[in-house]
Amino acid sequence: MATIIPLEQSRRKSADRALEVLTGLVADDVRAVNQLIIRRMESRVPLIPQLAGHIIAAGGKRLRPILTLAASKLCGYDGQRHLKLAACVEFIHTATLLHDDVVDASDLRRGGPSANALFGNEASVLVGDFLFSRAFELMVEDGSIDVLRILSNASAVIAEGEVLQLSTAHNSATSEQAYLEVVRAKTAELFAAACRIGAVVAGRPQAEEEALRTYGLNLGIAFQIVDDVLDYAAVQERLGKTVGDDLREGKMTLPVILAIHRGNEAERSFWRRVLDEADYRDGDLPHAQDLIRRYNTLRDAIDRARHYGAIARDALGLFPDSPVRQALLDIIDFTVEREF
Amino acid sequence: MATIIPLEQSRRKSADRALEVLTGLVADDVRAVNQLIIRRMESRVPLIPQLAGHIIAAGGKRLRPILTLAASKLCGYDGQRHLKLAACVEFIHTATLLHDDVVDASDLRRGGPSANALFGNEASVLVGDFLFSRAFELMVEDGSIDVLRILSNASAVIAEGEVLQLSTAHNSATSEQAYLEVVRAKTAELFAAACRIGAVVAGRPQAEEEALRTYGLNLGIAFQIVDDVLDYAAVQERLGKTVGDDLREGKMTLPVILAIHRGNEAERSFWRRVLDEADYRDGDLPHAQDLIRRYNTLRDAIDRARHYGAIARDALGLFPDSPVRQALLDIIDFTVEREF
Repeated sequence: MATIIPLEQSRRKSADRALEVLTGLVADDVRAVNQLIIRRMESRVPLIPQLAGHIIAAGGKRLRPILTLAASKLCGYDGQRHLKLAACVEFIHTATLLHDDVVDASDLRRGGPSANALFGNEASVLVGDFLFSRAFELMVEDGSIDVLRILSNASAVIAEGEVLQLSTAHNSATSEQAYLEVVRAKTAELFAAACRIGAVVAGRPQAEEEALRTYGLNLGIAFQIVDDVLDYAAVQERLGKTVGDDLREGKMTLPVILAIHRGNEAERSFWRRVLDEADYRDGDLPHAQDLIRRYNTLRDAIDRARHYGAIARDALGLFPDSPVRQALLDIIDFTVEREF
Repeated sequence: MATIIPLEQSRRKSADRALEVLTGLVADDVRAVNQLIIRRMESRVPLIPQLAGHIIAAGGKRLRPILTLAASKLCGYDGQRHLKLAACVEFIHTATLLHDDVVDASDLRRGGPSANALFGNEASVLVGDFLFSRAFELMVEDGSIDVLRILSNASAVIAEGEVLQLSTAHNSATSEQAYLEVVRAKTAELFAAACRIGAVVAGRPQAEEEALRTYGLNLGIAFQIVDDVLDYAAVQERLGKTVGDDLREGKMTLPVILAIHRGNEAERSFWRRVLDEADYRDGDLPHAQDLIRRYNTLRDAIDRARHYGAIARDALGLFPDSPVRQALLDIIDFTVEREF
């Protein structure tokens, strides 16, 4: 049940290679940031680099710090400050991941060797705190109150978004608007801050700072919507996490919200049992996927994501054409059209 | 088995009333800080003030923010910056408490309605993150890079200390030195930062800043040692937590470390079973308390605490006599001699 999104052939190709191209454009910086990350997660307490290394090395695409590096390049910045700040963005992201994975006893059955499954809840929380504090130390070393304001604000909004998500979980009455508020807070704000910082270190005018913030925020919303689609649609091996996790955890994401709104009373009572009552049974995931397919909610969720992608695209109109600008545009397609 | 510490009568009296007197000396500031705390833990997500309120209101003595207020007064500061920074210190402390209480599934049996028992691990972690981020927002509003450096550094050291404590748990080979390093990092650094900030906002010379840091650090070490003593010695109702928690959780604290070092092989094998193997049985707490009594380790731990108290006392020698200086001195006795 992989999501296939029609895209003209040439745009499809650049979407596929977009992250590779963008990473290549800032390759030296990425190496420097990786070194910085490894150096700054060191500690006399061995458990810290062990656990942090598990999640940071296991690694991921480093999308957020790469956005900081690319935005700096787009703004013509040629100093060194963006390196520390990119590491800082990755530390905040990693801390959030670690804390996201902390679960209550009843949830301990989820699949996959997450950090908390390997090291325990306590260690995940505390190492997350360490990375978060380290992020602030890096910002303080940078010394700019503007950057500190942007990132401390983003951190507070992220935490608020995570709590909001917790409050909407297991509540099938969650609206699309409430979902969007969660997505904006827990995911998009860090994308926005990561991009905006590029203009700040380069000392660019307010309009460019705002444009990059708009780009990041809307890219981040699109990114999260697609992530939530993939939780129901992806090919297990490519996703790198268990398909159906969101359903099992009672998370209210767009594919489900739309299916509930479009469904009949019998279907809603199914959703209420699985989500509100957390009474998850064998066969519930395929049934949920059937309903999602019947109402085409994955396709429509991707359409919503495209809308935010379009806003992100227009925001970059302010900047003259350049390879990095093109790569940032292609990243939008990559984000919306990715299948993994 | 309450710890009775011999103290000359007059000093005993002032110790008892010390916190009351100190709080009274900065009463207006304490009120302002309490209001600030309530205002700044507000959020459009109701769970945040609910949970944060549970732990902040349930409240405690506000010892750390009061130290910031008192240190500012000691330094003759008459502005408003110390109020926000005191709130910030309390937020960091509260976030730490929330994260401390997050436990692994196997530990969920512990007594007492901690926040995580009432609201769940996830909520405790995320609201802790929110308070921590809010603390940084408050610092950024203050705008001083010096303050930001002190507190971001303290936060990283605290997190490191918490992980270090986790690494020493269930390890009966933990040395007194390793214990001291944990105590210094997880507890004393925030006391040190809280006090030091008073000199920073008042723009006092380096020597006074250092003196207040020394006072706070050593007061904090004494405070934690006594806390660890009380876990074996206190009268249950006064402690406000369950006597014996540390033993059940395999925490390596000074009373136990000294008893292990002074014990015979049979006793050590008892400690290894309870601590290293986490094989805790009925009757283990009374037996542990017997061993602790046999080797007088509570009294000796308190003696160690007094040593740090003496260092804290001398640090204040730099400041001219005043009611607030006297109250800060009495707080040392209060910390070391308290029975609750």
